[in-house]
Amino acid sequence: MIHKLSELSEKARHKPKQKIAVAAAEDELVLKSLKSAAKDGIVIPVLIGDKTNIERIAQSIDFDVSGIEIVHNHKGAAVSAQMAVSTIKNGNAEILMKGLISTSDLLKAVLDKENGLRKGDILSHVSFFESPHYRKLLCVTDVAMNIAPDLNTKVHIINNAVEACHKIGITLPKVAVAAAVETVNPKMEATVHAAELKKMQWHGCIVDGPFAIDIAVDKEAAAHKGIESEVAGDCDILLMPDIEAGNVFYKALNFLGGAVSAAVIMGAAVPIVLTSRSDSEISKLYSIALAAAMD
Amino acid sequence: MIHKLSELSEKARHKPKQKIAVAAAEDELVLKSLKSAAKDGIVIPVLIGDKTNIERIAQSIDFDVSGIEIVHNHKGAAVSAQMAVSTIKNGNAEILMKGLISTSDLLKAVLDKENGLRKGDILSHVSFFESPHYRKLLCVTDVAMNIAPDLNTKVHIINNAVEACHKIGITLPKVAVAAAVETVNPKMEATVHAAELKKMQWHGCIVDGPFAIDIAVDKEAAAHKGIESEVAGDCDILLMPDIEAGNVFYKALNFLGGAVSAAVIMGAAVPIVLTSRSDSEISKLYSIALAAAMD
Repeated sequence: MIHKLSELSEKARHKPKQKIAVAAAEDELVLKSLKSAAKDGIVIPVLIGDKTNIERIAQSIDFDVSGIEIVHNHKGAAVSAQMAVSTIKNGNAEILMKGLISTSDLLKAVLDKENGLRKGDILSHVSFFESPHYRKLLCVTDVAMNIAPDLNTKVHIINNAVEACHKIGITLPKVAVAAAVETVNPKMEATVHAAELKKMQWHGCIVDGPFAIDIAVDKEAAAHKGIESEVAGDCDILLMPDIEAGNVFYKALNFLGGAVSAAVIMGAAVPIVLTSRSDSEISKLYSIALAAAMD
Repeated sequence: MIHKLSELSEKARHKPKQKIAVAAAEDELVLKSLKSAAKDGIVIPVLIGDKTNIERIAQSIDFDVSGIEIVHNHKGAAVSAQMAVSTIKNGNAEILMKGLISTSDLLKAVLDKENGLRKGDILSHVSFFESPHYRKLLCVTDVAMNIAPDLNTKVHIINNAVEACHKIGITLPKVAVAAAVETVNPKMEATVHAAELKKMQWHGCIVDGPFAIDIAVDKEAAAHKGIESEVAGDCDILLMPDIEAGNVFYKALNFLGGAVSAAVIMGAAVPIVLTSRSDSEISKLYSIALAAAMD
């Protein structure tokens, strides 16, 4: 069982170091998090972008990049993304990271049919929380990419999250399909999806629901309502109904819950680190560690 | 500014005591919370239901009901609800509380066209949070009643929450219309509703959005994203996109956020206290205090 995100940094530190290809690395916050990650011995950065700008920004934050591979590109961020993807395809890096580039431009390079990093059918956002109010890491998905996933998309979202869990050592994650209530109500699609998902054959995970959040994370609440399930009160993965519920939950824990989170995009050939400006420094560092800890 | 829910108990204690009519009061948890509320001098209970059962349960929890008005009814919970509603219509109580009765049976009595307590167009659930991570009470709505409110329903939901704020002394609440992002995206109805709601004429409140939760409650996050709004980072009311997002947020703060909450149903002639079994003791007590503190 993993209790803290720092265990992921620890894990990444004690395995053969992975390389992280950074698309459009000329970004102060991104370079700051890479400075920490490199110093902690979590990853080896490969910086792709405008070399002059990268070196200038690195110097301004006291990040010595003299020993770090910089792949120069002056043709703009979209080309940097293509080059980062090629770096990975050529076996010269195992993780992709977003720099000063829009998410859609980065994903365009990832999803390119010929030269991209396609693997599964769906890319999805997979986050892991360390909460002072939960006894182990809590994986939450999808809070940022898939707006209103249909049943089939939810299957892929679950599989992506389960794969992430397996890769960091959570061998048989318990998946709670989150909703507002525990009974199936045709007016609430999330509950209908939950009933369908529960019926399917799953490998490497246990799926149950619909559960409101209290039932999913609190054994006492589950007992109060007479719900018997090995997932109830002990879930590893929370599948969110849609992007609104997911995002609201993610931000509630991060901004009003004293939690810390890490996140990657799963579903491509390699994990993608895609931090946002409002993420805390530590959250950015843990996101890199999460990707680097994956086997 | 109200910082803590205990201020509501304090307020209720120092004003003329209100009577709370309890529909089907023969419930241990409900009587426990009424025992605390009566002891604290917050309300005067009027217990409606099976007198023998009420007295037996009261005795088992050491609640002396000898000085408390009990209105006997042996014809079942639905009739108790009608009698509780009549008690209020006759001016003998100012608050309605749900006992051992289904929510739908209780609301049927409330919404009865001739004998009910109808006032506005929409009943909605209004909750108030005391969070260790927010500097004042945070009102969140609707997390339990309206499943997928349309624009017009959202107007009523906002007005109900604003009325609740006014009644406890929050004179000009700032309403953040919550969503997953800050830009209007036709694929995300919450953002479209937010833009419409923002354009409307409001009285007694300020409405802005769409805001993700970090923007709504965290000034630094708002500044990071360059969002200038007197609501951003300082909201009093969070309007949730739908019941899934609302419920997930509510449960996240209560079960993973170290928060305490109180809630009432607004939109009828009087506030309705409708606690659920999984609510903590203190949360039930604060819900009674919230209703009793209203002017």
